[in-house]
Formats: sequence, structure tokens, C-alpha cells
Amino acid sequence: MSKIPLFPVTVFTEKNQSKPDLLAIEEPLEIRIGYGCSDAREQKCISVTMRTPGNDEELALGFLFSEGIITHISQIESIKHCIDNGKQEANNIIRAELKPDVLINWDKIIRNFYTHSSCGVCGKSSIEALGTMSQFNLKIEKKVVSGSVFHKLSELTKQQQTVFKHTGALHAAAFFSYQAELLGVREDIGRHNALDKLIGYCFIKNELPAQNKILWLSGRLSFELIQKAYMAAIPIVVAVGAPSSLSVQLAQEKNITLIGFLNEKRFNVYTHPERISF
Amino acid sequence: MSKIPLFPVTVFTEKNQSKPDLLAIEEPLEIRIGYGCSDAREQKCISVTMRTPGNDEELALGFLFSEGIITHISQIESIKHCIDNGKQEANNIIRAELKPDVLINWDKIIRNFYTHSSCGVCGKSSIEALGTMSQFNLKIEKKVVSGSVFHKLSELTKQQQTVFKHTGALHAAAFFSYQAELLGVREDIGRHNALDKLIGYCFIKNELPAQNKILWLSGRLSFELIQKAYMAAIPIVVAVGAPSSLSVQLAQEKNITLIGFLNEKRFNVYTHPERISF
Repeated sequence: MSKIPLFPVTVFTEKNQSKPDLLAIEEPLEIRIGYGCSDAREQKCISVTMRTPGNDEELALGFLFSEGIITHISQIESIKHCIDNGKQEANNIIRAELKPDVLINWDKIIRNFYTHSSCGVCGKSSIEALGTMSQFNLKIEKKVVSGSVFHKLSELTKQQQTVFKHTGALHAAAFFSYQAELLGVREDIGRHNALDKLIGYCFIKNELPAQNKILWLSGRLSFELIQKAYMAAIPIVVAVGAPSSLSVQLAQEKNITLIGFLNEKRFNVYTHPERISF
Repeated sequence: MSKIPLFPVTVFTEKNQSKPDLLAIEEPLEIRIGYGCSDAREQKCISVTMRTPGNDEELALGFLFSEGIITHISQIESIKHCIDNGKQEANNIIRAELKPDVLINWDKIIRNFYTHSSCGVCGKSSIEALGTMSQFNLKIEKKVVSGSVFHKLSELTKQQQTVFKHTGALHAAAFFSYQAELLGVREDIGRHNALDKLIGYCFIKNELPAQNKILWLSGRLSFELIQKAYMAAIPIVVAVGAPSSLSVQLAQEKNITLIGFLNEKRFNVYTHPERISF
């Protein structure tokens, strides 16, 4: 992880005493892609997200991957921050340059963005229509992980949550092996960004699909998070908070084992308990 | 509030025992507006949000208001669910019909949406450029609320959080008077939706700007939530969780008193403590 993104302020307590405090930084990041053949390069803005600075390369690539825009690290020429029209802010725009032979299906991208964040979702009858199709299919291996493993994960992640330690404010996403070895942690003010960073980390190392991995999440489980897990083919998703109805429906359909309300003593398995030996 | 939106499931516990559970429902809502003169009516999709069904009229109007698309209830002819192309789903599309004399500045809307959720944010030097301008200006009245009032608010809201009671899963937003009288509570799987519902509730009753009101929020404070509070001219925002750096910067600039980390014993005032008598 890069340097800890903290914002110092002075606050007043309930007793009207002032004291110093540290806030988690929230700033916009514009994600662009550069594409086309070498004598006719173009660039396009794909999204702006409010994120905590740090691991921006992973965030951008994880986002582009989980939206189905890119599929493999071999498609990426470079990924770096850029400056717009000679202005000063060098840290809030990032551009992924695609190799000249990578073809972008703009129609498909626009259609996908519509189904995610604009029109065209409703009135459709299946959850299929809500999300992008994954290039991977998850099979359900029986009893690959012991139920006792899950209780340890929150404490193991907490030890690595550097920004949360200072601010009490950040979401985190972590990958574990089936034997509870911590493989990576990422933090962000947005739950979806923390997961995109983690998926981007695997994307860069060419470790997707995320086989034999447990994804641990600090918050509640929404449709959007399970959609990203499905794109990366993560077999087991464990969250500290509650799942939504749609996240459970999607996990059921896509063969993801979904666990919610995890703490040191208990958890609830909402879908595909076949992977767990109790 | 309409009927409680709950989704029954069967879960397995850590002891491999099955038990019934209730999930908070997450479903897409498409928000449309109908506009134009009576012999040339048109409709346009403005947004799709993943929300918990219930109070959809408030959600749609609160969203359209906080995006700066509509400014007053007198502009609304009707607001109701509609069916797309003869399909069955009648609950996931809602349309606000504007009166024929309401002019829509589409250029401005597109520009605003860009600054919120797409390109054009970064490379700009002020937070001003990130959000829509409010029609209201907040003035800071001195010592209008006693600090002891805040400690009661979470407990008072909890008594009204009907879905949270069953699922442990929903965000809530509530309005209080300066004397801690509960004026309204709304719940949703999305923090921004809960606040849009609450603002929509006031919009319908023609009670905006939200003068002399305290807004209580169940989660953390992001830029987006303070931007909505600014649009509705809410003078005091109190949250159970931590604020982000950008939410504090915006509250400071827009004369909003921002309080975080609220519980029965303590809180932190991040901006404009002048409104509080300690």
C-alpha cells in the first residue's frame, strides 16, 4: 500500500473542547482508457468515482475488469496518472493505455453502463439483465473449507487496516486462502472501490479467476459487490454485515457461497453451503 | 410508511442448522420524468437506483430535487408507477409528470450528471465544481440547539426503524426539531436513497428549505450526503459514523454544522459549532 491517506482537522467534543482528529480522504478519480492504433490514438472517460487515494492503478484496472471492458493484463500497455489540459492536479485522473490490437466494443460498454447506473434495468424480468456476463464459470467443489476458518478472518484483516485504525471510517476487502492465510487487503471509503482495488491487484498479477479464495468484506452485501465477485469468479464471499435480497439471489444463481453476519462466534450461510465442512 | 419490504430465506448457521431469516429487499427503481406541452408530451429516464421498495414517490421527487432538476412541488402534475411496453413489473419504474409550463434545461442536467457520476469532475480546482448549486443559502444562527439534544437522537430513531429491526441491514435518515422531536424517518439499503426519501417527504409537503431541522444519519458521511443536505438547506447534520474529508470541506463552505461519531455519551463537531450551546 502507498502512503496512508489521512486529512488532519480540529474538532470540538461534546464538552466544547477542541482536539485534533484524522479523517479518511475522499476525492474523485476519473478513469480513462487510451485506445486505437499508434497513429490514431484516442482516449475516453469511462467513469468518475469518489475514492480514497492510494492503489489507484489497481482501482482503475479492477473497475475496468469488473465492468467487462478489459479481460486480461496482456491487453494493458500502461496505467498511470495524467494531467488534463496543463492543470495542476496530477493525482485525480488515471489512464489505462490499451495495446493497439485491443478492440473495444463501445456498444456493449454503453449497454452495460446503462444496465448498471442508468436506464434499461427495470422492466427486465431476470437478474441476468442487470449485470455484465463473466468470462468464468464457477463450479461447486464439495467441503473445501472448514467452517471454523471464517471466525478468524475479521481479526486478521483488522491488523492490516491501516487507515481504519486512524479514522474508524474505511471499508475494507481482503482475500484469504481456504486455510485463512491473508493474501491481500485493500481499504477505501467506498465498499465497491475496496473490492475493485483487490480485484485489480489480482488482475495485475494475472491471478484471475480468483480460484480457491475467500473474499472478506467489512460491510453489508449489495448486488453490486456480488456482481463484481462473479466477474472475478470468487467462490466464497464472507461479510460482516447483512446481505440484500438481490445479492443472495445472484450468489445462488452464479454458484457463489455467500456468508453474512460474520463475527468471532457465528455466521449465516445464505447460499451454497456445499463448499463448507461443518 | 408502506408495507415492510422483507424477503424470507432459509440460512445455515455455523453449526449447520437451518433457520428462517429475513432480508432487506434490494430492487432497481427507474426514475423518469414526463414533460412538454399537452400535445407533445415526452418522457426521459433520469436515473436507475438500487433501492428498498417503499416510499418510491418520495425517493423519486427527493432525488430529482437534490439533483436540481425540479425545485418546487407546484411543478409536479403527478407522480406514479408505470409499466414499460406492456410488461408486468409495475413497481420498478416511476414517472414524475411535470406541468406543461415547466421548462427543463437538459444541458444543465447533463452537465450536472457529468460532475456527479461521470466525466468532468477532476482537473477542476474547487469543490464548487463537484456539485449542483442550491437555490437556498444557509445562515448561521448562534446557539440555537443544546448539545445535550444530540445524544437522544439515535435511540429515538431506532424505535421507528421498522425494517432494520427485522434485518439489521438498513440505513436510515431522520429529521428532528431542535428540541429532539422526531419529524420523520425513512429507511433504505442505500444511505443516499434514505435521505432522498426524507427530502422528498418534505418536498411533497412544501417544507423546503428544511429550516430549523436536524438531520440524523445512520452511517458514515460522504460528500454526496452533504451535497444533498446543502440542496435542501438542512442546517445541522448528525451522523453515527465518521465523515470523509470532502464532506467536512463542503459542510464548512456551505455553512452546515456537521457532527460525527455520535453515541449516547459523545460526539465530534467538525464544522460550525456556533449553532450549539454547550
